[in-house]
Amino acid sequence: MTSTKAILADQSDPLRSFRDRFELPDNVIYLDGNSLGALPKTVRQRVAKTISEEWGEQLIRSWNTADWVHLPQRVGNKIAGLIGAPAGTVVAADSTSINLFKVLSAALGLNAGRSKIVSERENFPTDLYIAEGVAKQIGKGHRLVLVDKPADIADALDDDVAVLMLTHVNYRTGYRHDMAAITQAAHDKGVLVVWDLAHSAGAMPVDLTSANADFAIGCGYKYLNGGPGAPAFLYVNPAHQGEFNQPLSGWFGHRAPFNFETVYAPSRNIEQYLCGTPQVLGMIALDEALSVWNDVDMEALRMKSTALCDTFIEGVEEFAAEYHLKLVTPRDADKRGSQVSYSCENGYAIMQALIARGVIGDFRAPDIIRFGFTPLYLSFADVENAVSILKEVLVTRSWDAHEYRVLGAVT
Amino acid sequence: MTSTKAILADQSDPLRSFRDRFELPDNVIYLDGNSLGALPKTVRQRVAKTISEEWGEQLIRSWNTADWVHLPQRVGNKIAGLIGAPAGTVVAADSTSINLFKVLSAALGLNAGRSKIVSERENFPTDLYIAEGVAKQIGKGHRLVLVDKPADIADALDDDVAVLMLTHVNYRTGYRHDMAAITQAAHDKGVLVVWDLAHSAGAMPVDLTSANADFAIGCGYKYLNGGPGAPAFLYVNPAHQGEFNQPLSGWFGHRAPFNFETVYAPSRNIEQYLCGTPQVLGMIALDEALSVWNDVDMEALRMKSTALCDTFIEGVEEFAAEYHLKLVTPRDADKRGSQVSYSCENGYAIMQALIARGVIGDFRAPDIIRFGFTPLYLSFADVENAVSILKEVLVTRSWDAHEYRVLGAVT
Repeated sequence: MTSTKAILADQSDPLRSFRDRFELPDNVIYLDGNSLGALPKTVRQRVAKTISEEWGEQLIRSWNTADWVHLPQRVGNKIAGLIGAPAGTVVAADSTSINLFKVLSAALGLNAGRSKIVSERENFPTDLYIAEGVAKQIGKGHRLVLVDKPADIADALDDDVAVLMLTHVNYRTGYRHDMAAITQAAHDKGVLVVWDLAHSAGAMPVDLTSANADFAIGCGYKYLNGGPGAPAFLYVNPAHQGEFNQPLSGWFGHRAPFNFETVYAPSRNIEQYLCGTPQVLGMIALDEALSVWNDVDMEALRMKSTALCDTFIEGVEEFAAEYHLKLVTPRDADKRGSQVSYSCENGYAIMQALIARGVIGDFRAPDIIRFGFTPLYLSFADVENAVSILKEVLVTRSWDAHEYRVLGAVT
Repeated sequence: MTSTKAILADQSDPLRSFRDRFELPDNVIYLDGNSLGALPKTVRQRVAKTISEEWGEQLIRSWNTADWVHLPQRVGNKIAGLIGAPAGTVVAADSTSINLFKVLSAALGLNAGRSKIVSERENFPTDLYIAEGVAKQIGKGHRLVLVDKPADIADALDDDVAVLMLTHVNYRTGYRHDMAAITQAAHDKGVLVVWDLAHSAGAMPVDLTSANADFAIGCGYKYLNGGPGAPAFLYVNPAHQGEFNQPLSGWFGHRAPFNFETVYAPSRNIEQYLCGTPQVLGMIALDEALSVWNDVDMEALRMKSTALCDTFIEGVEEFAAEYHLKLVTPRDADKRGSQVSYSCENGYAIMQALIARGVIGDFRAPDIIRFGFTPLYLSFADVENAVSILKEVLVTRSWDAHEYRVLGAVT
């Protein structure tokens, strides 16, 4: 039974029409758009057309006739509009990990003479792993310094810090940093900042320009709905373009790739951050998925996002203590992204029981159940129903039936 | 008019049935499969199913239920079978350029203490650019030494050479190295060898194991027909697995990615060469395209490839001198891949005139016209017709109508 409150909230939701732009299975409440965004309805046809007509019929000619060759820039410019970046500062390419390798290498080059990379112990692991890989390859004693909580960041920024590398919204807790304030604090200490927007691009307004961020990276397959393993993106502040080289110097980063010159001469523009031949099928799916955003009011998106999360938190609060669910997401909406997480015993089994009942969230080791709230395709009724089903699972201990196995789900 | 010889050759072609496995437009003779392979007929449906059912309906669950998570290994093992590599030594991932960055970094780590990377000036530029990028980031004085012709390679292998990096079949000339002999010569000098198989995987039998190659990389979108910007692949000799780290240390290379550990602990197996989340749509297209190869006799493939090239060369020989076409591909079939190239004045315009008449090859600056012969979907009649149309273009000077513009075609 949906409450009158939820019915009214859905009726007055300015984004309610967007649900029809997505394919979503019946009897599923999808609270995992922060891991893999749902399928926009027009993607299948667009990809089919690319395969049949552009690849099958036009063949090699499509690099020109369908302008495949500029997909990284075209898709990048669409993403730029969602993250407060001017045209020509964002490209879609490769994976988030690889893009981090590029911008982190560039940032360390810009701040040569300083040896520390500061990040959070709770940052998404691949970011930390890549920082290790970059530091090790450069071999000049760079080291990764990890702080335990956001409040410790400011103190860690001393004169030997080259780069502060943070994920804007934490993948486990949903904690959201104040991007503008932290960037300013870092700059005051001569520290460059790399922001990972994996859990914020498409989830809320982001303004890299007003925050004066140095570099950013992000993911195409979460809130941007680009499909599994979609190309990722990267942003480089115009002030840093043209000055420094990144080491993944493949031919698409050359200033004239089709001159087939022997010596690498990097583009002076954002194209310098490209490497190999673009992954066309993934680019096309992401490009099509991004067309949904043309009509989205980002402020309305954020308002709905916080309201959905509040509704969920309030609903779960009624029984959380009794069943030992501990909210690890900030209660203050200003300090969180578009997800709500709880630590709890038997979290894995509880999530399996939820999934068996059509409420798809995910589990993050060791003990976090995580629920993502994608404003474009979720309703307040969905959220209420998810709360009810969670309560039912806990009350009936139906999670007992779900034994532990390791999930291969991808954040 | 197709000659009796061509008709008979096509009738006795053991691979003639494979043409039906590909979508090819009418009135086109496609001699550019060495740049972008043609579309295998089943790919569109397979990708559509992945989009609709796996992404659209199963959503995040498909990482497990459709085993997306092991696509790099599954696709890699299929490619392994085409290049003489055992299971567990090949993964599909990222781009050729990025995979080269990984294996070149690993090779330099294995051969620390030596400073040179030897390659050919005529190697495909992105390989040279990546070598520059790796050397620059390591910053220990590694330098790229380029030889002008294959015969100079042996002399360049002195005690300071860490890695010999060669493309098995040259992208412009079609010259093919003797992989086994060169690898042996390099090993005799303590040099590790990285082979780029971009123009040989799927074009001929390759045997990395018997050649005892150290590392190999290659392309999914040429003779493997994986589609535009398909994932690339890499091979690591089992003797080198587990010992050395590569710097693109993303979470899919971790020994337990879903434990979300803070510190990078590389897989001891080929998975160490993975980085970020796999590009699922591209992987699925490549996986499907590779199913064509189950029934291919690679020795028959090579025989047909050399016969197609011989037929073309012999046909063009009748008028090449008169129109100043200079064969830059070795006349000796043992020394070439599956393409034939000529240098000539007005090469760009000549190729445009050919394309306008349905014969699709490509142009490589400054003066090369290039024709790829894909044995799976070309007939001897196609080759004869291509020769006739080339002659007609030259005789009538119909290329005069085609002005110069820069092509964005992708090798």
